[in-house]
Amino acid sequence: MGSAVISLLTDFGLRDPSAAICRGVILGLVPQAQVIDISHEVRKYAVRDGALLLWCALPYLPVGVHVGVVDPGVGTARRPIAIRVGRGDVLIGPDNGLLLPATERLGGMDEVRELAEPGYRLPTVSASFHGRDIFAPAAAHLARGVPFESLGPALDPGTLVRPRWPAPRRTTAGLETFVLYRDTFGNAKFGALASDLAAALGPLEPGDPLVVTLGGGSARAGQALRVEPVTWQLTFGAVPPGVPVLYEDSYGRLCLADNQGDAVSRLGLVDDLPVIVARRGGAFAPHASNRRSRPGP
Amino acid sequence: MGSAVISLLTDFGLRDPSAAICRGVILGLVPQAQVIDISHEVRKYAVRDGALLLWCALPYLPVGVHVGVVDPGVGTARRPIAIRVGRGDVLIGPDNGLLLPATERLGGMDEVRELAEPGYRLPTVSASFHGRDIFAPAAAHLARGVPFESLGPALDPGTLVRPRWPAPRRTTAGLETFVLYRDTFGNAKFGALASDLAAALGPLEPGDPLVVTLGGGSARAGQALRVEPVTWQLTFGAVPPGVPVLYEDSYGRLCLADNQGDAVSRLGLVDDLPVIVARRGGAFAPHASNRRSRPGP
Amino acid sequence: MGSAVISLLTDFGLRDPSAAICRGVILGLVPQAQVIDISHEVRKYAVRDGALLLWCALPYLPVGVHVGVVDPGVGTARRPIAIRVGRGDVLIGPDNGLLLPATERLGGMDEVRELAEPGYRLPTVSASFHGRDIFAPAAAHLARGVPFESLGPALDPGTLVRPRWPAPRRTTAGLETFVLYRDTFGNAKFGALASDLAAALGPLEPGDPLVVTLGGGSARAGQALRVEPVTWQLTFGAVPPGVPVLYEDSYGRLCLADNQGDAVSRLGLVDDLPVIVARRGGAFAPHASNRRSRPGP
Repeated sequence: MGSAVISLLTDFGLRDPSAAICRGVILGLVPQAQVIDISHEVRKYAVRDGALLLWCALPYLPVGVHVGVVDPGVGTARRPIAIRVGRGDVLIGPDNGLLLPATERLGGMDEVRELAEPGYRLPTVSASFHGRDIFAPAAAHLARGVPFESLGPALDPGTLVRPRWPAPRRTTAGLETFVLYRDTFGNAKFGALASDLAAALGPLEPGDPLVVTLGGGSARAGQALRVEPVTWQLTFGAVPPGVPVLYEDSYGRLCLADNQGDAVSRLGLVDDLPVIVARRGGAFAPHASNRRSRPGP
Repeated sequence: MGSAVISLLTDFGLRDPSAAICRGVILGLVPQAQVIDISHEVRKYAVRDGALLLWCALPYLPVGVHVGVVDPGVGTARRPIAIRVGRGDVLIGPDNGLLLPATERLGGMDEVRELAEPGYRLPTVSASFHGRDIFAPAAAHLARGVPFESLGPALDPGTLVRPRWPAPRRTTAGLETFVLYRDTFGNAKFGALASDLAAALGPLEPGDPLVVTLGGGSARAGQALRVEPVTWQLTFGAVPPGVPVLYEDSYGRLCLADNQGDAVSRLGLVDDLPVIVARRGGAFAPHASNRRSRPGP
Repeated sequence: MGSAVISLLTDFGLRDPSAAICRGVILGLVPQAQVIDISHEVRKYAVRDGALLLWCALPYLPVGVHVGVVDPGVGTARRPIAIRVGRGDVLIGPDNGLLLPATERLGGMDEVRELAEPGYRLPTVSASFHGRDIFAPAAAHLARGVPFESLGPALDPGTLVRPRWPAPRRTTAGLETFVLYRDTFGNAKFGALASDLAAALGPLEPGDPLVVTLGGGSARAGQALRVEPVTWQLTFGAVPPGVPVLYEDSYGRLCLADNQGDAVSRLGLVDDLPVIVARRGGAFAPHASNRRSRPGP
């Protein structure tokens, strides 16, 4: 691994020194590493938020070692793992689903190891800071040239914990998905890709009238419905400020935004809120079916 | 360009991975680059805030390529541009005024190009993330040695969009300016330099009694006036905690602060609030006139 | 100093460009430096918070030059200093107590200098931004190879300002300490180490029932007492979500947390709140005494 690129994603926050300590441990072992902070402001304990951010970011980073730590189970029996993917990267973190979605964007899982080798940890391993004591040292040793196989015993990829991230469904009501992530602009990212919507409703053109039903579906039956008329657009600026658009974000994901506004606050969107998207004014979908439209992410 | 310094300033926020993705794209093209994050917490869509931060920061950074992305018009017809300045830097971003004030601190604009060359963009350009797809790649290619002229066609500097940033005015009431920026300490930076105030009121000595009238002027006629007595000081610590001072910040700008306090919250300061500064107790200005005291920011 | 590692810790905030400007000044002088941002989100003016973060972080960073700037007295007579420690690092910042606790974790103070040499400052020194004008340049010049002794005259270490950080006391009520720091997870770090508690109460086993009395002690007599039953645990996950634990953090410090919750908010913890820890249900301490159990922070 000639180019020692190591990335870090955590929920440690940027006020506390934990993220910098991980960087310091890495640079102590690999002084020339290029360390990229993907984010240290992942919502506390929000494993799936972290998983989405890795899914977004890693395809645009150089091949390297990527450490993810959103780890409410630190100190319990959950396993510390390393995953080698098709593109050549290694993903390191807890076995809680954080790393899995990104592997599908990097060529899939080639091999998984448990981080069991004491020689590639700090001499003392605390109960509450495995980022410093286990994950960062493992990444640094890999970047130094330690073989992947030396990290610990192989694990069956089928035994890894998967994140809660249901696939979208085509139903008679439209494309059923959910609020997956709320970004810092107040835009909502859904659990479906734009291509899922096109598969459900047919090709989409700018200006196509659509309707987003929030709170429907089967997941939270008691929740009040809210029906939001929107149009399909390629850019925010196609509508006046404050007007909502449904669009494909720069990662191919289906998203809802208010141009220069905050749709998440305006609509009170929360994680896992059920969402149904359909065409306005008539039969919603040329190829509706009840099959899952994709397996992933 | 031997020392590959590339700086980034955006309103992407530090929770989302967008800023790290720009860094990743750059390091994929220029593995040895020194990437400096000026800020990714610029207030969302606040083009002028970003412009001020670049104005403050760039003179202290090494000569390099500086990418600014506060871009509410992303995906619309606004042009992506690169500006070469007298000091040798190149500034890259949208043509919305973000980059212009800083150019005056770096020797002025030498030449402007539109970022039109597809070979210096990512293969696919999204509608909503030009930082990743256009601006970061252009910066990286420049740092790799691509000639400035290769980025795209020359633009007439006179056609560039300018930010809303009125020059201070000397009137019979004093020096008229406005709240330009509110920093994270709760200090207010005004649209005038300390030298503008000295030009209007004559030389200033520590302890000189002044009065700041907030909400006056012509811009927001309906706004209630607030009159704040202050003294001119060289340091915060010259007054007790909580007491306001008018001072020259470390960039030469005229500012208002409460020592160890938050003047912005205490006084309810908002962007563009009109401000008049005068001497207390008598004729305010030895050389008052109604001419603009400087062309800039 | 072959490996030019320079770390930065400030209360400048990540929205304003001040931290990046310090980095820029450093890279202008030492283009190959590895600059590590420990934190720029230290609570404004909270010198002791910054001191704790340096105490936590520096032992895990490579030997280098470490700049700390939490400096409410900037521009006043407080001295700018550099401290060389036993491990070989140099700590740079204001003489207000910020740097002292960390020195004890790095082998203690070897020598102290005042940053008086104009040649190792920026040409113009402002009254409000010594991070940029004095501290960052001094760090960079050291990293370039300037001898420590050249920075300015030697200072007597005994004259340095010490932070307010009282040692824990064993009393008949238990171990008396205080709330030292509240981290971004909502966990409280106390002014005692876990070893202080073990010295006061005897060896601790997971599950041991303890009681934390908040607001007692002598420091704030008027404050209402709150009695919180807890157990001693090695990991958060040993108790259900929301349940409090007393534990040793990954730096050896005595801490209180709610598993996956926010103990600071739930209990209204504030800095310097007196804390007494005792065993539940009986005589609290096998070796109680009224002596200070350690000298330090």
